[in-house]
Amino acid sequence: MARVLTPRSEDFPRWYQELLAKAELADNGPVRGTMVIRPAGYAIWERMQSEMDERIKAAGAQNAYFPLLIPESYLRREAQHVEGFSPELAVVTHGGGKPLAEPVVVRPTSETVIGEYLAKWVSSYRDLPLLLNQWANVVRWELRPRLLLRTTEFLWQEGHTAHATQDDARRYARRILHDVYEDFMRTVLAMPVVAGRKTARERFAGATNTYTLEGMMGDGKALQMGTSHELGQNFAKAFDVVFSGRSGTREHAWTTSWGSSTRMLGGLIMCHGDDAGLRVPPRAAATQALVTVVKEGEGVPRAAARLRDELEAVGVRVALDDRVDTPFGRRAVDAELKGFPVRIEVGPRDLAAGNVVLVRRFDGTKTSVRVGAIVKTVVETLALDQQALYDAALARRDAGTVEVKTTDDAIAAAIAGKWARVPWSTMGAEG
Amino acid sequence: MARVLTPRSEDFPRWYQELLAKAELADNGPVRGTMVIRPAGYAIWERMQSEMDERIKAAGAQNAYFPLLIPESYLRREAQHVEGFSPELAVVTHGGGKPLAEPVVVRPTSETVIGEYLAKWVSSYRDLPLLLNQWANVVRWELRPRLLLRTTEFLWQEGHTAHATQDDARRYARRILHDVYEDFMRTVLAMPVVAGRKTARERFAGATNTYTLEGMMGDGKALQMGTSHELGQNFAKAFDVVFSGRSGTREHAWTTSWGSSTRMLGGLIMCHGDDAGLRVPPRAAATQALVTVVKEGEGVPRAAARLRDELEAVGVRVALDDRVDTPFGRRAVDAELKGFPVRIEVGPRDLAAGNVVLVRRFDGTKTSVRVGAIVKTVVETLALDQQALYDAALARRDAGTVEVKTTDDAIAAAIAGKWARVPWSTMGAEG
Ligand SMILES: [Zn+2]
Ligand SMILES: [Zn+2]
Repeated sequence: MARVLTPRSEDFPRWYQELLAKAELADNGPVRGTMVIRPAGYAIWERMQSEMDERIKAAGAQNAYFPLLIPESYLRREAQHVEGFSPELAVVTHGGGKPLAEPVVVRPTSETVIGEYLAKWVSSYRDLPLLLNQWANVVRWELRPRLLLRTTEFLWQEGHTAHATQDDARRYARRILHDVYEDFMRTVLAMPVVAGRKTARERFAGATNTYTLEGMMGDGKALQMGTSHELGQNFAKAFDVVFSGRSGTREHAWTTSWGSSTRMLGGLIMCHGDDAGLRVPPRAAATQALVTVVKEGEGVPRAAARLRDELEAVGVRVALDDRVDTPFGRRAVDAELKGFPVRIEVGPRDLAAGNVVLVRRFDGTKTSVRVGAIVKTVVETLALDQQALYDAALARRDAGTVEVKTTDDAIAAAIAGKWARVPWSTMGAEG
Repeated sequence: MARVLTPRSEDFPRWYQELLAKAELADNGPVRGTMVIRPAGYAIWERMQSEMDERIKAAGAQNAYFPLLIPESYLRREAQHVEGFSPELAVVTHGGGKPLAEPVVVRPTSETVIGEYLAKWVSSYRDLPLLLNQWANVVRWELRPRLLLRTTEFLWQEGHTAHATQDDARRYARRILHDVYEDFMRTVLAMPVVAGRKTARERFAGATNTYTLEGMMGDGKALQMGTSHELGQNFAKAFDVVFSGRSGTREHAWTTSWGSSTRMLGGLIMCHGDDAGLRVPPRAAATQALVTVVKEGEGVPRAAARLRDELEAVGVRVALDDRVDTPFGRRAVDAELKGFPVRIEVGPRDLAAGNVVLVRRFDGTKTSVRVGAIVKTVVETLALDQQALYDAALARRDAGTVEVKTTDDAIAAAIAGKWARVPWSTMGAEG
C-alpha cells in the first residue's frame, strides 16, 4: 500500500504534522502560534466538551462567563502569578481608535478577574463552596508553537472555586482530578493517564499545590493532559475574598482552579494514532461508524441508507459515504486517516449474498457479517474497540515505564526514552 | 407586596438593570463595556446555544474554530469592511513581552480570517457549498455599553459560507434567516420577530444585502435579534476565493455570513420580563420547574424529592428548593425574579390533603393539584405557557405597530412610540 504518512518510528513530530493536515484536523493561524481547528477536529472537541461538561456539572460546578480583557493591574496583585505570566501576555494598548489610559491584557487564565467577583459574591460561609467553571479561549504568547499542543491561543475550560476550609478546597481539587479529568480521560479518551503531584518548581504560578494527569504518547513521551490546583489563600488575600464564619469570624476563603484544553485533542491523536492515520476511541468519535457504498449496484444505495438509519436509531453516531464517483480506495484511505472507529462496506456482490463487510479501524481487520446481524455487531465492536485502545495504550505505558530508586537511574531511564517512577522522597517536595 | 423592581412603566432601562442584578443574570466586567455572565444567565444561554446549534447543523453547516487574533492588514483588504470596523477595534501591540512587528486586532468578526482559509480549501465547484459556523467571542469597542445588548465583548455564533452561484448564496442566507433564526426565536424564545431587509445605509460593512430579525421589547422598542448577510463576491475577491467551475472556468465564490449573539438573551429578558422579574419561556429555561418545600413537616421533604425525580424522569428540567431555613416568602420572590416557568409548592397541610400548589410564572395563578396528577399537569402547563408568552408578545407587537404610507406618517408613529410598517418603495433600497 502507498505510504500515506511518514511512519511514526521515522519522525514522530512530522507524522503528527502530516496527520493534522491530511485528516483535516487543524491548521496554523495567520498570527504565529495561533491555530484553526477544522470541522473534523472540532467535532471531536465538541464530543470532549460534552462529556467533560456533564462531569463538571455532576461535580456541582456551574458554568459562567468572565471577560476576555483584564486590567493589567489585576495580574500584579498576586506576586508569583504576575511573574509566571508576564512573558506570555498579549497586551491591548488601543481600543476604539484611541490609546487606552490603562493597557489591558488578553486573559492568559482567569484567576484574577474571577477573584474580583468571588470577593463580591462571597460574604458568608453560607455562600461557600462557590463552584464555577467557564469554557473559553485564552492567550499565552508561545515562542515554540506546536498545533494543539502549545499554541498562542487555545480553547479550554477553567474551573474556579472558593471554599471555607483548606480541607474542603483540597478535597474538591482532588475530586475534579479524579472524578472529572481522570474518569473522562480513561473512559472516553481511552488513555491510561497517571495522576500525580508537581514539585514546587513545576507548580502553577500562585498555587500551593498542583495535581497533574500525564498521558504517554506514541513516541513514549509524556503529555500533561490536565491540572488541578490548590491556591491556598493566595488569591483570596490578593482579591479580598473574605467570608464570615459560623462564629462570626472574618476569614479568607481557600480557592482552587483547574483546567484542561484543546491540548487533550493533540494528546488523543498522539496517543492512539498509527501509521495509517488517526484512531478515535468510539466514545470520543463524532462519527463512530461510516457506512460506505463500495460501488453502484442493484439496491446498494438503498441498503446503505437503511443501514445508516438503523444504526442511528440505536444511538450510533453514523455517516453515509455514497460518493461513488470518487475511487473506493481513495475513500478508504481517507476514512483511515480520519479514524472513524468502524466502517461498513456495502457492495453489490456481498449484498446479493446477504452480507456486508465490517472494517475495524483499531486493527484493520475485515469481517463479513450478515445484514441482519450488522447493527448488533457494530454496537458490540464499538465497545470492544474502546477497551482495546485503552489496553494497547496501557501496555505501551507499562512497557515504557521503569521503577527506579535514584535520580541517576531516573536520568538514565529518560535518556533511554522511558518514564521513570521515582520515590517522592528521592526528589523532595521542592523538586 | 413590597416592590422588588422599579416598574417597567416608570423607567424601563432601570428595570432592566435592576433585574439583571437581582436575578443574578449578568454584571459589568472590570474593563468598561465588558460583562460577566453569571450562572443563572449563562444557563439560559447554554439552552439557547444548544437549540441554535441543532438547527445550524440541520442546515448543513459544520462547526470549526478560527483564531481570536487577526493581522491588521487582513481587515484592510475589503474597503467597506475596514471602514465599518476601524473605530471599534481592540489592537494588540505587545506580545510575549515585546512590541509586535505588525499589530494584530482582536476579531470584531471573522469574515477576513475565514476568507483566507476559504481560499485555501476551495478549488473546485465540488468543494462548494462550504458551510462553516463558529461559536466564539468577539470584541467591538463600545462607547455606550448596555449589559448583554451592546457590550465591548460578546459571545456569538458566526456562520460563513461559500457558494458557486449568487442564487445559491442568497437561498442559503434566507434559509438561515428563516429555518435557523426565525424558527428558533419563535418556537424557543417565544418571540414573534419580524423578518426584514436592511436599506443600503444600514447594511453590514461589506455586504450586498442584509436580512434582519427584529423583536419588540416590553417598552415597544425594536431590538435586532440576528442578521444574515449576502456578501456578494466582495470577500471572495479580497481573499481570492476562486473555484474552477464545471466547464473549467475560474470564478470567484459567492459568500454569506450570519450571526446571533448574547444580545438575544437581553432581548428575551426585555421581551418577556414583567414587574416581578424575568419570565423564561419553558423551552429556553434551564430550570423549567422548581419544586419548593414550603416548610418542614411530616413527609414533606421526601414527597418533594420524589416529585423532583418524577418530573426529571419525564424530561422536565427541574430543581428542588428545600432551603427551609430561608423564609418562604423570600424564596418565592427570588423564584419570580429568576423566572422559572412553574413552581410546585409542597407544604404539610396541602400534602396531608393529597395536594400540592402549582404556580404559573406566566400569570401568577395558583392552583391546587392532586399529587397524582401533578406531573401531567406540569407538562401540559409548560406547553401552554410557551404559547401564552408568544401570544402576549404578539398581541403587544400588533398593538404597537401601525401601517403607514408616507415617511412623515412613519416619523409620527415613531414619536408616538410605535413601529411603523412603511412600503419598501416609500423608502427606496438606499434608505
Ligand atoms: Zn484580605
Ligand atoms: Zn481574486
